[in-house]
Amino acid sequence: MVLLTRKAEFSAAHYYYNEAWSQQENENVFGKCANRNGHGHNYTLEVTVAGEIDPVSGFVVDLKALKDVMEREVLQVYDHRHMNLDVPEFRSTIPTTENIAIAIWKRLEGKIVGARLQRVRVYEMPDLFADYCGE
Amino acid sequence: MVLLTRKAEFSAAHYYYNEAWSQQENENVFGKCANRNGHGHNYTLEVTVAGEIDPVSGFVVDLKALKDVMEREVLQVYDHRHMNLDVPEFRSTIPTTENIAIAIWKRLEGKIVGARLQRVRVYEMPDLFADYCGE
Amino acid sequence: MVLLTRKAEFSAAHYYYNEAWSQQENENVFGKCANRNGHGHNYTLEVTVAGEIDPVSGFVVDLKALKDVMEREVLQVYDHRHMNLDVPEFRSTIPTTENIAIAIWKRLEGKIVGARLQRVRVYEMPDLFADYCGE
Amino acid sequence: MVLLTRKAEFSAAHYYYNEAWSQQENENVFGKCANRNGHGHNYTLEVTVAGEIDPVSGFVVDLKALKDVMEREVLQVYDHRHMNLDVPEFRSTIPTTENIAIAIWKRLEGKIVGARLQRVRVYEMPDLFADYCGE
Amino acid sequence: MVLLTRKAEFSAAHYYYNEAWSQQENENVFGKCANRNGHGHNYTLEVTVAGEIDPVSGFVVDLKALKDVMEREVLQVYDHRHMNLDVPEFRSTIPTTENIAIAIWKRLEGKIVGARLQRVRVYEMPDLFADYCGE
Amino acid sequence: MVLLTRKAEFSAAHYYYNEAWSQQENENVFGKCANRNGHGHNYTLEVTVAGEIDPVSGFVVDLKALKDVMEREVLQVYDHRHMNLDVPEFRSTIPTTENIAIAIWKRLEGKIVGARLQRVRVYEMPDLFADYCGE
Repeated sequence: MVLLTRKAEFSAAHYYYNEAWSQQENENVFGKCANRNGHGHNYTLEVTVAGEIDPVSGFVVDLKALKDVMEREVLQVYDHRHMNLDVPEFRSTIPTTENIAIAIWKRLEGKIVGARLQRVRVYEMPDLFADYCGE
Repeated sequence: MVLLTRKAEFSAAHYYYNEAWSQQENENVFGKCANRNGHGHNYTLEVTVAGEIDPVSGFVVDLKALKDVMEREVLQVYDHRHMNLDVPEFRSTIPTTENIAIAIWKRLEGKIVGARLQRVRVYEMPDLFADYCGE
Repeated sequence: MVLLTRKAEFSAAHYYYNEAWSQQENENVFGKCANRNGHGHNYTLEVTVAGEIDPVSGFVVDLKALKDVMEREVLQVYDHRHMNLDVPEFRSTIPTTENIAIAIWKRLEGKIVGARLQRVRVYEMPDLFADYCGE
Repeated sequence: MVLLTRKAEFSAAHYYYNEAWSQQENENVFGKCANRNGHGHNYTLEVTVAGEIDPVSGFVVDLKALKDVMEREVLQVYDHRHMNLDVPEFRSTIPTTENIAIAIWKRLEGKIVGARLQRVRVYEMPDLFADYCGE
Repeated sequence: MVLLTRKAEFSAAHYYYNEAWSQQENENVFGKCANRNGHGHNYTLEVTVAGEIDPVSGFVVDLKALKDVMEREVLQVYDHRHMNLDVPEFRSTIPTTENIAIAIWKRLEGKIVGARLQRVRVYEMPDLFADYCGE
Repeated sequence: MVLLTRKAEFSAAHYYYNEAWSQQENENVFGKCANRNGHGHNYTLEVTVAGEIDPVSGFVVDLKALKDVMEREVLQVYDHRHMNLDVPEFRSTIPTTENIAIAIWKRLEGKIVGARLQRVRVYEMPDLFADYCGE
């Protein structure tokens, strides 16, 4: 079994805000991230798949197909968008790095032909990232 | 004369939109950046100053003082903000990388003690940056 | 379960020297690292914690609290210090990358509220790093 | 147990081509990589070993010895070579990132004194890498 | 005047060989690069243009147009190619980093609408790059 | 004229301390850097040379010769050393990034055959660097 990882980037805005809390409570927990006008990041996404190597092609997964799935299922929905306002799953869930990793897992699960989705890693900044492996 | 460059990062949201144009014209010129909900970036700022080395301290510029000026004049105003909505100079100017570089120059000019501001570089993404040298 | 990783940097001096050996033996094993005046590095620390996402905040761990623990327990003791001379655990243990990873684990263990310490990674240079997972 | 990872780089040319297929079939599967004149990459290799720390040296593995093994077994054979034409194992196997990771594992297995080979990671580009752990 | 720089990457094979010299002379001057089967790199290209900011768009240059020119004039000819065998200008000129920078300048000169080509930088590896400014 | 830049790295310890000042004055000006036990960095050095391309070799400068000069004149003296204690020019000069850039310029000046030394850049950390161009 070999793991193959492909990276992609997307630029998005977001804010952290719990509607059930007061403005002050939100600022206490989320600090500057509670600004409702939003701020943003260049996110880096790493998608890892696992499988046996096809002896004919030498691939664990068709690289072009993997890129297309990431483009169609994730980047077209997240890139150059405001997470809270434009992306359905974040209308009621706070778009933390952790939740974005889970959401991307759900978007990719079952869509990759010939290999098993192994891990989704999301970097919000070079010094902060979340990993989700499906359970 | 020696040049000394210090980097800093800030995360902000923005959009590109010219109010004098139709939605369609904005999309033609600005593409995905015309989304009025905004998207965002991890910006990297490089500030370069020039001067003679102080023989006593070995510094062209007091590093702590330079950091404080960048923090006070730029990061406190731009970091975790929406450029178009939260930052005065971008209420009527489109926050392109070029315009951000000029705006930061104006914010820093005359505020650095003992050395001359030489260049402001702003990276919107690792593969796109603008330089402004004051004229 | 989601993993959340936060990075930090510290700059420190160290040398590799076993008092029980001759100067020559130390140079044979440790090469240039045996210079008793010391040399140094910009270390990068990655701390990974594991846990369930709090549905209210969207966090596995409070990011500010994690940052504060890393600052208080590690950076204030290691940053801008000489490992062998200034840090208690390296007075009798050689500050190799491996030993630094274990020492940081011991400093952080039990100090992170609400999530489990999963892994400590220490980069001495971009091309050399050690991982410790607690056993 | 501690993991220790060392990186190295090599520059090589390669192409993807299955002799049993027509030119058209190769282009359908491999796209631009099917160009028989070859193209190339700066590969990054990460070799991870696992073991107990030697209490005398503080090392899981002698760093110089690990570097020498990687140099002798991998870099001298792969660096500044054309994978398909110069490297024996790729005369009949397509030098995909996945296959290169396995080939390097086979070259290193059993050659590292005092620690167990744990993982081989190969980056073809910063946004594409394969991991192999020996089974 | 503001400078705007855009990066792009291409992967290519090449070798260094002067037909007028013996094999031995080539190896003396070019070392491992003289291998006629070729080796390769992930090149990084930085194109810098200079101009005034258009007050309506906020751009020094239309970013999409700049990307298209780089794609059409450079990447389609160089990416996934063997420099010596596939690219006309390197049939009789050795594709050193310096010569590639000049060749890209010649390919881009006069093709960028609304701004002046200021500098072409080519990285062969992260630790080696050439700059050409047109004279 | 083309510019060619080569990078190298060295790891060194240093501290900032002016013997003419009290301990308190040193801490006021140099903060944590005033620790006399020293701390350290992975420095990155960029050496830029300028010249005409040799039409026979395609080089502005012999790459191997440039590497050898950097190795012999700089790395053998600075790498794995304590700047203040091991390097002659920093016995009486504070090894700030600015002073290191000038010292490296002096070490390289007149030693590079066939091209002109154009610029020395020294990174103390990824977010701080100094440039010196010889006057």
